[in-house]
Amino acid sequence: MRINKALEMYNFKNDYAEGAHPKILERLAASNFDQELGYGDDRYTLAAKQVLYERLQNPKAVLYFVSGGTQANLLVISHLLRPHEAVISCKTGHIYANETGAIEATGHRVITVDGVDGKVTPTLVKEVIDAHQLRPHVVKPRMLYISNSTELGTIYTKSELISLSIICKKHGLLLFMDGARLGHALMSSSNDLSLADIAAHVDIFYIGGTKNGALLGEAIVFKSKELAADFDYTLKQKGALLAKGRILGIQFLTLLEEDLYFELAAKANTLATQIAQTIAAQGYQFLTPPNTNQLFPILPKNMIKDLLNSYAFYIWKEIDDDFQAIRIITSWASDQQEVDRFCHDLKRLADAKQ
Amino acid sequence: MRINKALEMYNFKNDYAEGAHPKILERLAASNFDQELGYGDDRYTLAAKQVLYERLQNPKAVLYFVSGGTQANLLVISHLLRPHEAVISCKTGHIYANETGAIEATGHRVITVDGVDGKVTPTLVKEVIDAHQLRPHVVKPRMLYISNSTELGTIYTKSELISLSIICKKHGLLLFMDGARLGHALMSSSNDLSLADIAAHVDIFYIGGTKNGALLGEAIVFKSKELAADFDYTLKQKGALLAKGRILGIQFLTLLEEDLYFELAAKANTLATQIAQTIAAQGYQFLTPPNTNQLFPILPKNMIKDLLNSYAFYIWKEIDDDFQAIRIITSWASDQQEVDRFCHDLKRLADAKQ
Amino acid sequence: MRINKALEMYNFKNDYAEGAHPKILERLAASNFDQELGYGDDRYTLAAKQVLYERLQNPKAVLYFVSGGTQANLLVISHLLRPHEAVISCKTGHIYANETGAIEATGHRVITVDGVDGKVTPTLVKEVIDAHQLRPHVVKPRMLYISNSTELGTIYTKSELISLSIICKKHGLLLFMDGARLGHALMSSSNDLSLADIAAHVDIFYIGGTKNGALLGEAIVFKSKELAADFDYTLKQKGALLAKGRILGIQFLTLLEEDLYFELAAKANTLATQIAQTIAAQGYQFLTPPNTNQLFPILPKNMIKDLLNSYAFYIWKEIDDDFQAIRIITSWASDQQEVDRFCHDLKRLADAKQ
Amino acid sequence: MRINKALEMYNFKNDYAEGAHPKILERLAASNFDQELGYGDDRYTLAAKQVLYERLQNPKAVLYFVSGGTQANLLVISHLLRPHEAVISCKTGHIYANETGAIEATGHRVITVDGVDGKVTPTLVKEVIDAHQLRPHVVKPRMLYISNSTELGTIYTKSELISLSIICKKHGLLLFMDGARLGHALMSSSNDLSLADIAAHVDIFYIGGTKNGALLGEAIVFKSKELAADFDYTLKQKGALLAKGRILGIQFLTLLEEDLYFELAAKANTLATQIAQTIAAQGYQFLTPPNTNQLFPILPKNMIKDLLNSYAFYIWKEIDDDFQAIRIITSWASDQQEVDRFCHDLKRLADAKQ
Repeated sequence: MRINKALEMYNFKNDYAEGAHPKILERLAASNFDQELGYGDDRYTLAAKQVLYERLQNPKAVLYFVSGGTQANLLVISHLLRPHEAVISCKTGHIYANETGAIEATGHRVITVDGVDGKVTPTLVKEVIDAHQLRPHVVKPRMLYISNSTELGTIYTKSELISLSIICKKHGLLLFMDGARLGHALMSSSNDLSLADIAAHVDIFYIGGTKNGALLGEAIVFKSKELAADFDYTLKQKGALLAKGRILGIQFLTLLEEDLYFELAAKANTLATQIAQTIAAQGYQFLTPPNTNQLFPILPKNMIKDLLNSYAFYIWKEIDDDFQAIRIITSWASDQQEVDRFCHDLKRLADAKQ
Repeated sequence: MRINKALEMYNFKNDYAEGAHPKILERLAASNFDQELGYGDDRYTLAAKQVLYERLQNPKAVLYFVSGGTQANLLVISHLLRPHEAVISCKTGHIYANETGAIEATGHRVITVDGVDGKVTPTLVKEVIDAHQLRPHVVKPRMLYISNSTELGTIYTKSELISLSIICKKHGLLLFMDGARLGHALMSSSNDLSLADIAAHVDIFYIGGTKNGALLGEAIVFKSKELAADFDYTLKQKGALLAKGRILGIQFLTLLEEDLYFELAAKANTLATQIAQTIAAQGYQFLTPPNTNQLFPILPKNMIKDLLNSYAFYIWKEIDDDFQAIRIITSWASDQQEVDRFCHDLKRLADAKQ
Repeated sequence: MRINKALEMYNFKNDYAEGAHPKILERLAASNFDQELGYGDDRYTLAAKQVLYERLQNPKAVLYFVSGGTQANLLVISHLLRPHEAVISCKTGHIYANETGAIEATGHRVITVDGVDGKVTPTLVKEVIDAHQLRPHVVKPRMLYISNSTELGTIYTKSELISLSIICKKHGLLLFMDGARLGHALMSSSNDLSLADIAAHVDIFYIGGTKNGALLGEAIVFKSKELAADFDYTLKQKGALLAKGRILGIQFLTLLEEDLYFELAAKANTLATQIAQTIAAQGYQFLTPPNTNQLFPILPKNMIKDLLNSYAFYIWKEIDDDFQAIRIITSWASDQQEVDRFCHDLKRLADAKQ
Repeated sequence: MRINKALEMYNFKNDYAEGAHPKILERLAASNFDQELGYGDDRYTLAAKQVLYERLQNPKAVLYFVSGGTQANLLVISHLLRPHEAVISCKTGHIYANETGAIEATGHRVITVDGVDGKVTPTLVKEVIDAHQLRPHVVKPRMLYISNSTELGTIYTKSELISLSIICKKHGLLLFMDGARLGHALMSSSNDLSLADIAAHVDIFYIGGTKNGALLGEAIVFKSKELAADFDYTLKQKGALLAKGRILGIQFLTLLEEDLYFELAAKANTLATQIAQTIAAQGYQFLTPPNTNQLFPILPKNMIKDLLNSYAFYIWKEIDDDFQAIRIITSWASDQQEVDRFCHDLKRLADAKQ
């Protein structure tokens, strides 16, 4: 088998470098020869939904499981917007920055705002509304897309979420939360939101499995039957309805029937916190507050160069002649020993600089 | 866990009722904690492509792995057609009959022809070309979509495929073969096509994993770099690029590095042949020739009613007051004992009628 | 100026060979230097709408003027259907046969039925509904598109329209009437529908100007504010909102404030009737009943060949070795003397054959 | 007829408040009863194209006439881009600021840059290219859209255009010029570009009629047959192919066979220059250089308030507590006496302030 140079180093580039939590693989194996109905009507999917309904405390919610985040985003947005309607997002939002125009490909503009640490504020929403008054020569803002945790590792507080919810209602905007890393947000030590809070204050969100222990899978939650009406058609039409829906059901059942989903996110956060504290202790800053499993420390360029000999991670942003921000991501599968080694190396390099 | 009534009977409704071949699950487990690059750049995907390149005997081919058949169809067709161009398909073709307008949703008309046993003929293609001359008031036919095996269980012979290839070239049509059940076609006792033949005579095709032993996955083969140019963008834009591409690579590597893929299809065909011969021996007819793992026998309605007490399958078509055509599908996972029992029951019911 | 061979003959090919009724040109000139608001907020558009509201006898109707029939069709259909919804049409319907896949380009399947003399029947609608039950693997029929007069020159009776309206309501289908030649339908001697009847029984329709005396223009009528909601955005987004909307307003005001629109259609019908009666008197048949300004007589091939020396018209359909159906169209601008000459020539040729 | 309050004032809001140049109306009347072929195959369209080919000095150019600017933009862009490709535009560009997401509705992202006086620079293009390297997670920039004159009344110099053309070629971008006000750009006293220069340095552009003397109409120029291939299909599919194409042909023939098009633009510019010089003489500044028929003077708010009693124009931008930028547009049809009166009033108000 071909050896990839990049893999000789320990990988902090993302949270999808490994497979799935072993319990998921075990359950896939255990259920393998059961005959199940296709297209999400299998018993595991039904059971996983049941578990999730209980956690959400919203009897009107409607649930669907899909394969990935870009898919979830384009399905939800294209399902809910009419052709002249647009979605508001941070410039750093995944739908704008990382999805190859997937939303525009379904016919809708993504209106961008600059964001504060990757988050949208009510003021920014109001500015968009004000700038889109010259009907019918402008698109009609109809949805606000936010990510929690964000693409910059930050999280929304309960009061921030409620204030967004209020301004969205006021201006007829649906509030959609990309939860590709929702587990990490909810398990952050800075977090004051519960899953039920989110279910109460946003119109649609999803619970990301791909980046938190599943082989693949995101659980989409619609607040009401009205919003979800005919979503089964949309799934099929966009090629998102798996024949063997069981593989999504089995995974979410495993992750959610006990607290595995939250334990895995907590582990990723804990490892990130260890790294963040090590970095802070050396006196370095962060581009955005280190709240979850994504860190954006600002480090000396020669230190970064040294670290890149042993670890894989992204250089995120040029800061000045001497410093760059990098992105470090931990996950449910990150190795404690490797994290220890990284912290050790970082301290050593910092000490050497003094 | 909820008990589904339908599952008390043995399921001949489709070839995706079970999970994956155990070797696939084993390999997923064995590789689980390897850190791999995302989005299809992992070592398993690269190895699986290498294996497939060798089988195809076309050094210019370009390969991609995706999740499912509808996804593969819409990706390929929307990637290759300009907005005013259309694809020709049988009315029974999956893209017309079973995909919720997925192709039209990408902006393209599916021009239908009636087909012969689910197959397109050169004459039908020529009729479409002739009917689309009043430029620019009509769409421009630009692709022919065929399935092998077809949605009616039939297969294309080598001479049929070549004659389609010739008329396509003559009229500037790309030839695209949906191979969701390509294994079953190639392993049919009536088949005279090789994988290399197909690679030589069609412009794009795919090798279906979902219906032949994989959890999910189809391997798309483009004949040339020109046809495949920028397909990576298309994959991402349509939400089809899995973060953990490794799960597709691992599966196709397992299926194709030895002959597992073909052995599984052969098993499904063998079980179907046993059923077909049993039915024929009782003097019953078939709607279409029983070539692969999908059978469409025409049986007395009261026999069907009895069978439905023990087995799940679809009633396909009303034939007359006394007879209906049903659809029976076997798979790599079908149980030999259940097939024996079905044949035994069928004979018993047939005898009772005499 | 280049001389076009086809134009040496008198043109019965279509009803848009000439410019506009002189009263329209006069009014364009008379209003030319008035400063008006753009985008349909001019005084002429407002006045034309007022006139039309009165004729429709539906105070809830909402009106828009657009440039042409294909544009009207794609605007209305894409505005009203959600992505997974489809429109039913005759195979001969303009949206299927003559518009380069304009509807599919907006993402929607056109489900075709064979039709009876270019008309859809309740039975055909029911068959489509029955064939689209396997949710979510099929598109969802949501609209019925009909033309009146049809592309084959035929018209809907009041009872036919009401029965379609009933089945549409029953199955949740919007009923949309393409009225590119609505004037000719309403002024047919076989017609028993009024403009108010149509406004009462269909959900959306339009009154065609392009083929009945205008330079360009179709008046779209929505039955309710709910259906029309945000249609201004759709107009602009699809490039259909003219900066100088006045040119549509002036034309419809001129056509509708008196009975000019109906007089022009009546004239076209009268000339067609003269031709139809001449043909019938010679014992020839018609492909469809000659109800309006489009005739489809079945004539001997050698007679057709002779007529083509002096007149331009389309050969529509091969009937047998000796006969073809042709299409003859008259218009508000057709010349009585040319019609007389055509009838005379036709009689002469018919006599010579005997 | 309803009286519109806004119309009691003289209108400097736009350049489409009046109808068409009288010569156009005369020619429409003179040709009215000629029978012509439909869909742009009429003799007037052919003659107008012939005249334009000669002016362009590019024998490979391909021409089409369409109704309006938004339509031209969406037709060209959707025709030339593949689904994953995007177009770059100033934030003030018409396709981003004023067209209701028309481009996104065809599936393509509009990537915005801030622009300098409404113009794109090579540096801005390079920044976009650099920011779109993370293939395939980003869209692929494939076209640069510019307007000349711009939406802020400014124009491109020959050297600016050539430097854009060079960077576009280098990065595989098509260069598309929106010429809704091309006449005003070419007749600007600051202009050093000829029509042939533009034809030589851009890939696609159009010559705007709607805002320079026509009832409606833009003439699209493709640099080569390859770029224009199948554009007739695109026209029809998007509802842009007028049955009576003659009305576009007649207008462009009238505007271009002599120098009427350029004389009309020159008149609009001259009137604007008179206003600009009057404003400058009073010591007021402009938001952007006053090069063409669109002016953006920065005036005291109380002066603006007074002027709004007698003239209609847009308030464009808040500058500070005391000043606003307004937009004044003159046209081929603007009245010299009204311009004189406006200048007189402006001087009077300025004097009163001192």
